[in-house]
Amino acid sequence: MTLDVGVLGYRFMGKAHANAMARLPMFFPDAPEINREVLVGRDEEALSEATDRLGFSRTTTDPTEAIESVDVFYNLGPNFVHPEYSIEALEAGVPVFCEKPLAPTMEEAEGMAEAASEAGVPNGCAFNYRFVPAIQYARNLIEAGELGEIYHVRGRYLQDWLVDPEAPWAWRLDEELAGSGALGDLGAHTIDLARFLVGDVEGEISEISGRLRTFTDERPTEDGETREVTVDDAYLATAEFEGGAVGSFEASRNANGRKNDHTIEIEGSKGSLKFSLERLNELEYKREGARGFETVLVTDSDDPYIDHWWPPGHVIGWEHTFVHENYEFLSAVDSGGEFAPSFEDGLATQRVLAAIEESDESGERVSLD
Amino acid sequence: MTLDVGVLGYRFMGKAHANAMARLPMFFPDAPEINREVLVGRDEEALSEATDRLGFSRTTTDPTEAIESVDVFYNLGPNFVHPEYSIEALEAGVPVFCEKPLAPTMEEAEGMAEAASEAGVPNGCAFNYRFVPAIQYARNLIEAGELGEIYHVRGRYLQDWLVDPEAPWAWRLDEELAGSGALGDLGAHTIDLARFLVGDVEGEISEISGRLRTFTDERPTEDGETREVTVDDAYLATAEFEGGAVGSFEASRNANGRKNDHTIEIEGSKGSLKFSLERLNELEYKREGARGFETVLVTDSDDPYIDHWWPPGHVIGWEHTFVHENYEFLSAVDSGGEFAPSFEDGLATQRVLAAIEESDESGERVSLD
Amino acid sequence: MTLDVGVLGYRFMGKAHANAMARLPMFFPDAPEINREVLVGRDEEALSEATDRLGFSRTTTDPTEAIESVDVFYNLGPNFVHPEYSIEALEAGVPVFCEKPLAPTMEEAEGMAEAASEAGVPNGCAFNYRFVPAIQYARNLIEAGELGEIYHVRGRYLQDWLVDPEAPWAWRLDEELAGSGALGDLGAHTIDLARFLVGDVEGEISEISGRLRTFTDERPTEDGETREVTVDDAYLATAEFEGGAVGSFEASRNANGRKNDHTIEIEGSKGSLKFSLERLNELEYKREGARGFETVLVTDSDDPYIDHWWPPGHVIGWEHTFVHENYEFLSAVDSGGEFAPSFEDGLATQRVLAAIEESDESGERVSLD
Amino acid sequence: MTLDVGVLGYRFMGKAHANAMARLPMFFPDAPEINREVLVGRDEEALSEATDRLGFSRTTTDPTEAIESVDVFYNLGPNFVHPEYSIEALEAGVPVFCEKPLAPTMEEAEGMAEAASEAGVPNGCAFNYRFVPAIQYARNLIEAGELGEIYHVRGRYLQDWLVDPEAPWAWRLDEELAGSGALGDLGAHTIDLARFLVGDVEGEISEISGRLRTFTDERPTEDGETREVTVDDAYLATAEFEGGAVGSFEASRNANGRKNDHTIEIEGSKGSLKFSLERLNELEYKREGARGFETVLVTDSDDPYIDHWWPPGHVIGWEHTFVHENYEFLSAVDSGGEFAPSFEDGLATQRVLAAIEESDESGERVSLD
Repeated sequence: MTLDVGVLGYRFMGKAHANAMARLPMFFPDAPEINREVLVGRDEEALSEATDRLGFSRTTTDPTEAIESVDVFYNLGPNFVHPEYSIEALEAGVPVFCEKPLAPTMEEAEGMAEAASEAGVPNGCAFNYRFVPAIQYARNLIEAGELGEIYHVRGRYLQDWLVDPEAPWAWRLDEELAGSGALGDLGAHTIDLARFLVGDVEGEISEISGRLRTFTDERPTEDGETREVTVDDAYLATAEFEGGAVGSFEASRNANGRKNDHTIEIEGSKGSLKFSLERLNELEYKREGARGFETVLVTDSDDPYIDHWWPPGHVIGWEHTFVHENYEFLSAVDSGGEFAPSFEDGLATQRVLAAIEESDESGERVSLD
Repeated sequence: MTLDVGVLGYRFMGKAHANAMARLPMFFPDAPEINREVLVGRDEEALSEATDRLGFSRTTTDPTEAIESVDVFYNLGPNFVHPEYSIEALEAGVPVFCEKPLAPTMEEAEGMAEAASEAGVPNGCAFNYRFVPAIQYARNLIEAGELGEIYHVRGRYLQDWLVDPEAPWAWRLDEELAGSGALGDLGAHTIDLARFLVGDVEGEISEISGRLRTFTDERPTEDGETREVTVDDAYLATAEFEGGAVGSFEASRNANGRKNDHTIEIEGSKGSLKFSLERLNELEYKREGARGFETVLVTDSDDPYIDHWWPPGHVIGWEHTFVHENYEFLSAVDSGGEFAPSFEDGLATQRVLAAIEESDESGERVSLD
Repeated sequence: MTLDVGVLGYRFMGKAHANAMARLPMFFPDAPEINREVLVGRDEEALSEATDRLGFSRTTTDPTEAIESVDVFYNLGPNFVHPEYSIEALEAGVPVFCEKPLAPTMEEAEGMAEAASEAGVPNGCAFNYRFVPAIQYARNLIEAGELGEIYHVRGRYLQDWLVDPEAPWAWRLDEELAGSGALGDLGAHTIDLARFLVGDVEGEISEISGRLRTFTDERPTEDGETREVTVDDAYLATAEFEGGAVGSFEASRNANGRKNDHTIEIEGSKGSLKFSLERLNELEYKREGARGFETVLVTDSDDPYIDHWWPPGHVIGWEHTFVHENYEFLSAVDSGGEFAPSFEDGLATQRVLAAIEESDESGERVSLD
Repeated sequence: MTLDVGVLGYRFMGKAHANAMARLPMFFPDAPEINREVLVGRDEEALSEATDRLGFSRTTTDPTEAIESVDVFYNLGPNFVHPEYSIEALEAGVPVFCEKPLAPTMEEAEGMAEAASEAGVPNGCAFNYRFVPAIQYARNLIEAGELGEIYHVRGRYLQDWLVDPEAPWAWRLDEELAGSGALGDLGAHTIDLARFLVGDVEGEISEISGRLRTFTDERPTEDGETREVTVDDAYLATAEFEGGAVGSFEASRNANGRKNDHTIEIEGSKGSLKFSLERLNELEYKREGARGFETVLVTDSDDPYIDHWWPPGHVIGWEHTFVHENYEFLSAVDSGGEFAPSFEDGLATQRVLAAIEESDESGERVSLD
């Protein structure tokens, strides 16, 4: 059976997922066959151009129509369209893959997770960095106890595209449209990776202190005016896990010189790990008994997903995480299996982000029990 | 017009090029339309499986038949099949893209370059590392004089897949079948990159001393016997360019701990560069007036080819070099333009490799004037 | 005039300072002449051995007697002896150099700073990392505005000597004797460096949230028993500076694989910096207009203090920071000038450490205004 | 017994050795007692100033007088004064420590080694990089077989102080005065380290091809004229060891962006090593069974010489190599034991340098059997 796929959103994420789908037959021959059936958007001209380029069969401006005609629905639109159409699809029994963060508010995120639970169909939240081979290799080490008891989890995601105070205003800087700033856009990835990597041994984050910061309060618009920035440029947090490890988390769009520096460091009684997204083929690993960190190029044929690609040392890129993610999600849809990260995972991360915001406002530590 | 493409070879290189062709429409919409028409091989079963997976329309075991029916011919077979079918295609006026090194012998390489010159159609030699954005960025710096007068060119390509003396014998270790070892397989890439990067300012290598070395003379075969290794495990060379710069070159398959470490370093009176293939998104650049090397992540939207892909910091992989290469070659075919690296470039590199072998045998410096 | 110097403490810090004093004549010929007059301790045998080895003229077990007979007094004993003898010396008009953190309690630290203020003689707190050439170079860049407006200050100090849960109990793990754990021992250095580097442009830390953590609650003693650990193994904090920058701070003695990794990162609107103590000759500097971080080897002849040592690229070590520190302090004593970091600086850092402890207990952000 | 030491030369090397001697009592209490008796030079004023600063008892302008009055003689003058006074001292039965390279010519070097052999007293050649703890740790790994069979030895020493074509002429650029350029000054260190590290398992270099290059033929003098440069700016060589390993060697004073980058890489069947002098506390080690290089900070208490210094992670500097070297040499003098690297080692290295020069001239490989 060929799965008809509908995708809402055709810009950055639409392109990343369409590319991933297009590559499955050549590299993951056991993936289910799919048909890029319909691309959903509002601007008909741009939509039409994208449909051709991204290899879809047709367009629609009506999400409901799309949902009714497909086997799988990808909700890759901006944050505020996540709840309505994701729930609509789930209620129609259509598996849904939704961008992160899951929803603009905790209430909506809870509604989505509930709908997913009731629908009983595969559902996914787009934390693609779980599908970096080096990250999966890291998780396997932790699961196997190679790091021993976990003491420290350190995650930060640094970019610099807002470092210039004269950089123009954009919709991503508006709380109504974007929900939050660095916290939701970047922090969501970090919190999810922390959960993915140490969740099985350390449980959830049980308690957190957070801080948000907007460095530039207003920015110029195209028409020569200025407009207020209503989201955070950076967040910082310190946390405790149920199992006793401590965590420190941070993200910024004002970190001069960092393009996409998503760094995760984990230290345990037996070993330690370091990872940076800008060098995503590598994992720094301090083994038990070793004297320092070893630079592991995670491109050997028995590393996660690598046998589908190229020989050792022939590095992969950022986009490959989407291929792995789509492979797993579509396989789950095809087989009726489970997929993680699910809406439940999206909700769990959102709960942490909300606690950071609450702590920022109250100045107090927030319990997540 | 849609170009019908025929490809001889369906393993590692066949897959790399088929993938590249498949990705052009989505990422390089101005590339010519192509039809993966026919895949050429000898093992019908394997060929048939590959044809489906790699998205070709049909198979043939007869290269001549393929050549006659296509607009472009890719010769991706082992070294010893390069001359015959490349020349056959060129004589038929069919543009040819051929794997490196160009040919098993200098005589054959000269024949191929001559055929290419007479045919007057686009022809390409598969030095894909020219198409790494960081390498093109590096070349632009050199062309613009940012490094000043060039003093040093240092290139080495280190792998470790033969480091175990008990690693099994394979056809790549036989001179008859493979031509040479590390020299032709890895050294060809290094010499071509040196020519690409500094050729316009320093000219060709004018004189070279070389040394070959086989560390393990015989290796076990599957049937419990041992078989002689007749190619080099490593080569070393020192050279002088026409412009006065000196070069040192090296490759090995016995460099324990290095998976695909192709490193190029260039030092000039004003600035310097370092590049490693294992971190191919990065270039280390010592600018004029700076105090040290700056790590440039060559993923900005105005970096070579990057606007076709993803936002800054979203790194690309090894395979992307093939997409860029195919884009340029097929565009040249479509427009009737020129493509580099051509057979002439393949021959120029082969001339250097032959001089290294000659010097290894004679123990004397070899002039390339 | 030759300055007679008395030093209380003859272990790690005693050796570091005695070595520094011994090296001044050869490398800093304009430093005042000094006489290592008297070494103060309790264990007469160990004291006597150290006196010979460290080049002192005589010993005493009576600090008061030492104070009365010298021109300068170094208080390098454990934390709990800092207040009494430092104040005694200051009241006698003797310049004092005291180890960090300044005192076990805020009250005592305030008493010491007050005594220093009233005495009007040079006084120093032992934050030796201010005297790393790369750190002074960094500070000069910030002062000159090369980083623009400061957004982020990130500091962490990671060691791993307690990572083994079976590592033995020691006096440093007892709150009575040591005051605090990683916070006072390591965090004091980080907070002082943050103040030193950005204090002039960002002012003091105005508000902070902190968290302490003890991973191993009890440890084995030599007699086969176990004893409670009453200090922190790690601290984490997020902060805001008066000028608007945010800071994140962390230290641990359980960071597997890190020996002495004191890292400072500062990001501003125009440029950024990174420093790690394990590579103390280097500064990573993202200049305005550059594309990435430049690795500056801060060993050129016009770099701070370097003209006293060796030619460019001949790296110095950890101990050299003590030579620079002693040079500055003793010169201030000799000339009657001022020295920083002073007791006032020690107090300012202690105020931040106390706020971190207070925040850890209350779970609330603490204002430092 | 206190050893009276005489030192010829009071500039860079004189200072480095005087400092080393001064530090022995505090850090190496079992070193023999020495008296910095006499400093030898020609410029009486400069000599007198240095004598005070470097802690010598008296000066002389007559080397012979010095030799007759001391127990040990350090010959740290320029190359051309090495043979005469070293031989004079040896013939007087005085142990000699001599700067590298041993002599201006092979004949003189042979004469010195012969004199040393006949004298039967300790004699040393100043290859101080043997005394870097990371280098000794590396050697121990190789001796213990941890790298298995050695395949590759790669050494290069890059500096950039001549990169500017307008940098002034200096005596080091004159063949008469300096012997050679980068080859003798930098290459001597590299060849000695290669011998030290792999000599016991691979034997000597048996055969070598070399190349010298002067990039800037003449340079401005202080009086507005230009003067010819008669030494090499860079050398390159490839070699074979008796045991079968291959080596590649290079040095330059025109390597823009490199201050003192002496890099050694060794690859074997079981493991590999990398070392760079600019980060001399570190060794990159690919262990058997590991997947990549591990960054070892060679500052643990059981690392070579480290227990004399500071706790783990408190890095040492370039000058410490001189302390270790002097400790070993003076201990050998005191005990009548042997010291390496000896004049014999200096001669062995000189033999390789001479072969590189010979090969550069003839264009042919030179055998060293």
